[in-house]
Amino acid sequence: MGKVLIANRGEIALRIHRACQEMGIRTVAVHSTADAAAMHVRLADESVCIGPPAARDSYLNVAAILSAAAITGADAVHPGYGFLSENANFAEMVEAHGLAFIGPRPEHIRMMGDKIAAKDAMRRLGVPLVPGSRGALASVEEARAVAAEVKYPVLIKAAAGGGGRGMKVARSEAEIEEAWRVARTEAKAAFGDDAVYLEKYLDRPRHIELQVLADTHGNVVHFGERDCSLQRRHQKLVEEAGSPVLNAAERDALGAQVTRALRELGYRNAGTLEFLWQDGQFAFIEMNTRLQVEHPVTEMLCGIDLVKEQLRVAAGEPLGYDQSEIRFHGHAIECRITAEDPDTFAPSPGRVTTYHAPGGLGVRVDSALYSGYAVPPHYDSLVAKLVVHGVTRSEAIARLRRSLAEMVVDGISTTLPLHRAIMEDPEFQAGDYTIHWLERFVARRTAAAAG
Amino acid sequence: MGKVLIANRGEIALRIHRACQEMGIRTVAVHSTADAAAMHVRLADESVCIGPPAARDSYLNVAAILSAAAITGADAVHPGYGFLSENANFAEMVEAHGLAFIGPRPEHIRMMGDKIAAKDAMRRLGVPLVPGSRGALASVEEARAVAAEVKYPVLIKAAAGGGGRGMKVARSEAEIEEAWRVARTEAKAAFGDDAVYLEKYLDRPRHIELQVLADTHGNVVHFGERDCSLQRRHQKLVEEAGSPVLNAAERDALGAQVTRALRELGYRNAGTLEFLWQDGQFAFIEMNTRLQVEHPVTEMLCGIDLVKEQLRVAAGEPLGYDQSEIRFHGHAIECRITAEDPDTFAPSPGRVTTYHAPGGLGVRVDSALYSGYAVPPHYDSLVAKLVVHGVTRSEAIARLRRSLAEMVVDGISTTLPLHRAIMEDPEFQAGDYTIHWLERFVARRTAAAAG
Repeated sequence: MGKVLIANRGEIALRIHRACQEMGIRTVAVHSTADAAAMHVRLADESVCIGPPAARDSYLNVAAILSAAAITGADAVHPGYGFLSENANFAEMVEAHGLAFIGPRPEHIRMMGDKIAAKDAMRRLGVPLVPGSRGALASVEEARAVAAEVKYPVLIKAAAGGGGRGMKVARSEAEIEEAWRVARTEAKAAFGDDAVYLEKYLDRPRHIELQVLADTHGNVVHFGERDCSLQRRHQKLVEEAGSPVLNAAERDALGAQVTRALRELGYRNAGTLEFLWQDGQFAFIEMNTRLQVEHPVTEMLCGIDLVKEQLRVAAGEPLGYDQSEIRFHGHAIECRITAEDPDTFAPSPGRVTTYHAPGGLGVRVDSALYSGYAVPPHYDSLVAKLVVHGVTRSEAIARLRRSLAEMVVDGISTTLPLHRAIMEDPEFQAGDYTIHWLERFVARRTAAAAG
Repeated sequence: MGKVLIANRGEIALRIHRACQEMGIRTVAVHSTADAAAMHVRLADESVCIGPPAARDSYLNVAAILSAAAITGADAVHPGYGFLSENANFAEMVEAHGLAFIGPRPEHIRMMGDKIAAKDAMRRLGVPLVPGSRGALASVEEARAVAAEVKYPVLIKAAAGGGGRGMKVARSEAEIEEAWRVARTEAKAAFGDDAVYLEKYLDRPRHIELQVLADTHGNVVHFGERDCSLQRRHQKLVEEAGSPVLNAAERDALGAQVTRALRELGYRNAGTLEFLWQDGQFAFIEMNTRLQVEHPVTEMLCGIDLVKEQLRVAAGEPLGYDQSEIRFHGHAIECRITAEDPDTFAPSPGRVTTYHAPGGLGVRVDSALYSGYAVPPHYDSLVAKLVVHGVTRSEAIARLRRSLAEMVVDGISTTLPLHRAIMEDPEFQAGDYTIHWLERFVARRTAAAAG
């Protein structure tokens, strides 16, 4: 692989450029007119303007990106995350143009993009899902029997449903008949179909995901889990590797199930399986067929460069190591720093007057910011990832506290103050949180500020 | 330990502050009037001005530093490197004031500060020195016999000598009689004493040093070697861990000898034994009884925080691990970036208009620079240490190349261009260098620039 076109922008375009440069691979940056002065454009070996600011006309402009690849003689495309990274048609077109797509096969992107098909495939492959009935329930007796098996609380849901309608929680057997009746009535009213099914209700789950990597020779490994439970409106804010609640045996067991499934599927390149986790049980929710924003915590835990691995695998190289050689050292945590008001989360684009990154042992910063850079208003608000490694989780938190204190991004509002507050919180420090924790933490902060 | 006074400035003061802060220890910065706006002063919990710019009146001003400790209620002093760090009287005074000195016992600082006494002690303790005669030679026959034993080339040196006078190389037995005669004549003329001794002549040695750590309970471990052969006028410029020429067995053997010796000596806290190395043989040259500039490469190799270890040991804690638990992962390299002209090495103090540190996986920057900071002309010219870790030495070099390309220090001259050139050099890339390599490399660059 001699030249890679990076079909992205911001910190992830820089991330991919760095891996290419260290491997002696030339890079082509593409950019909108709003990003002409962006770091990924400044550092790339070549750059091509692919359109006006709006993403649909530039970073989602397949024709312009493929032209840029042809003009520059690139022989591979790395899509990063977001934009076209999970667009199976784009992956197919890249390959139809004789370029390597640095990611999974288009069929697997398509399969995992369809959330129902993805769950069906994973069920078939033996990956755990939320336990419950197999399809629609025939009777309240069946509901009672399944509930007894999966244990209360349970959720009765419209088979045709969505958006929370036709959905009832039963917390004990005394509530099952009523829940069955109400769910069916609502389902009929909302969707014209009273078929319902039953699932275990996870009232305090964590979001735990597993990083996998497959070559084109049938080798599949995993690099352990990430705990990404700290979310606000389904946006992850802080991610850890490993999870504070998982032990090595649980990690290994999940890893064995997942790698076996992906080997059977014939998956290739990097991917992440996302699960809800509660009381020691995993339930698959979806698979991301791309590099993830939070991949650095895994890199720091395992001492591996995931982007280089993606490039090697895409070039047809075998992994060259097996699962037993992958080791997990210490603990890593990432803070996603966005250009947003730390209280209202209103976007805060604009010129960065001073940017100063923290340094020292165990600190990694992935950011395309620089002093004088104007953050454009057109794209995702992520501007920096501060990632630390420590021998223990408590050392990692202490390291985040001191490096968050050192970090300076002046001229725009960022979520730095929110991250500083999270690191001081005793519940966070104890690792005691679910996917609902951050929303409540933010609400408490807002209330305290208002009061 | 509740509060530490950091008796230093620049990047090492910041380094120590970071370790303290992560351990929940408060910090006191001391500073000259020239350093009022320095990063270590800005970030410390408290700061005290200890005098005017000249180091003898501020950073070497023992009375002012001890007063600052008393005023602020500090209970320990970390001396960093340089300044008072190897001043046994200072260490004694610190302890006489009831403060912990974060370093070795004063007697060992004193012993290792006397280079003859240090060698005598190490010989007695079984640490290898340059092989040669035991004291003065009685006759040319004895010279011939010792030379045959240690093998040619050999050096005949004035016992009372120094500065290269009364020093002759014999490259074979045919040259020994002449060398003996000339060395004695010169010794007599220069020092009034014709006593000479003989040593193996190391014509292409490497500088390899071993990092050690001892607690106050008799436990001594080592963290492997650093290769610091890239020196200009005895100033190290690039350091690696491990050495490209040492294997694990050689490291372990040296480590066993050295830790045994230091256990017998009753040494405490961190220290470094420096050796010349050639053809598989180590020869002790001196011991540094302090933290060294290049300690980060060891930290990145071993995944340990040496300053935190110093603090724990100084607080009386036992190490809590033994040698077999210390592991060496991958390879680390440090570039010392100084505020100097990269060709003439003329100092280049002044205002830094833009400072931008590189980031990403495996990159660590230890620097007290910031945009707008004025580098004062009064002190050492070291302004940043760029340290990288890679799975292999070649990955570390590739990572340095790309991070040196990203790093920006505008407004002053720095040695960044020199480091970029070193990383491109095939001999450096092959690990094929001695302590003479860098001087020749610089001379070639100067000649090429002039031509």
